[in-house]
Amino acid sequence: MTTAKRDTYTPETLLSVAVQVFIERGYDGTSMEHLSRAAGISKSSIYHHVSGKEELLRRAVSRALDELFGILDEEPARVGRAVQRLEHVVRRMVEVLIGELPYVTLLLRVRGNTDTERWALERRRDFDHRVAELLKAAAADGDVRGDVEVRLATRLVFGMINSIVEWYRPDGRGMGEREVSEAVAHLVFSGLRAQHD
Amino acid sequence: MTTAKRDTYTPETLLSVAVQVFIERGYDGTSMEHLSRAAGISKSSIYHHVSGKEELLRRAVSRALDELFGILDEEPARVGRAVQRLEHVVRRMVEVLIGELPYVTLLLRVRGNTDTERWALERRRDFDHRVAELLKAAAADGDVRGDVEVRLATRLVFGMINSIVEWYRPDGRGMGEREVSEAVAHLVFSGLRAQHD
Repeated sequence: MTTAKRDTYTPETLLSVAVQVFIERGYDGTSMEHLSRAAGISKSSIYHHVSGKEELLRRAVSRALDELFGILDEEPARVGRAVQRLEHVVRRMVEVLIGELPYVTLLLRVRGNTDTERWALERRRDFDHRVAELLKAAAADGDVRGDVEVRLATRLVFGMINSIVEWYRPDGRGMGEREVSEAVAHLVFSGLRAQHD
Repeated sequence: MTTAKRDTYTPETLLSVAVQVFIERGYDGTSMEHLSRAAGISKSSIYHHVSGKEELLRRAVSRALDELFGILDEEPARVGRAVQRLEHVVRRMVEVLIGELPYVTLLLRVRGNTDTERWALERRRDFDHRVAELLKAAAADGDVRGDVEVRLATRLVFGMINSIVEWYRPDGRGMGEREVSEAVAHLVFSGLRAQHD
């Protein structure tokens, strides 16, 4: 019996259940008891896979962070004019956010009460900083407007992108990640106003 | 003694304390006991002013909603080309958000568990709808790009604006509301890319 249950619960499926519970109850409000009930397995079966809920949180936010940092290693993010590299990063951020929706949602809700949360916030800041550097380089090239301060522009662009977790639902009827990433890239780089030649 | 305490606590100051507590603990997590302790007055003194915490929530979100709907009645939001009216609304939304920061923050966190919360969500939807209609009119005039769907564009623009509550702190050292509203208007209408003639 125990063996059969273990077979159906890989670390991967346990992680995806835990992420849902963390999002619904908040990380602080989630106990091992809640996780055990949501997963339908005993607490000791969970301890068979992980040391506790903080390890589940670390694995979940690592998944989101690894995908986000992975973008910066992609060739179009490394080679070419800064403004084009920035546009690639913006599009891919939207795709990662939608593709890894629960993991990125959790990452964005992390508040910093435990070591893992503080580490995740630190990594998020690193990522934001890398994107801000790209924006600064594009401004130095004269490809990005000079009348909006770089840190403010970065915050507003991240604000637009991160807000997608509040309403995007992968129900199959709505917009695909490509449609959303196109729209974000259009708005971020060219704005709403129609271009008249 | 009681009279003296009542003198220092007007409905207005009680409201501002309650909003802070609601933001910190969440509305559901706030009891009359928490409000009484934060305000430094007895529960019966609070009941002298209001019928309970739901009335405080209603007053607080009403303040934010009244300011937001007030924008739509301003002359530049009513007269002129739709795209210019929309730009006025976007700028003023940022100013209201910053000017009424705790009240708008609370409004944006409302989830819908009580009648007051459901009413606030409904009024927010009305407001979003009014702005979306303005965007649609601007698109019909050919002043706003046709390749981003109106509902998606509205969500992304609101996402950018609403994200300001996450980082803006009125500490006197940072950016003023005018600088932020200028930046938002530039980004929303013209985007990041430098305009080369």
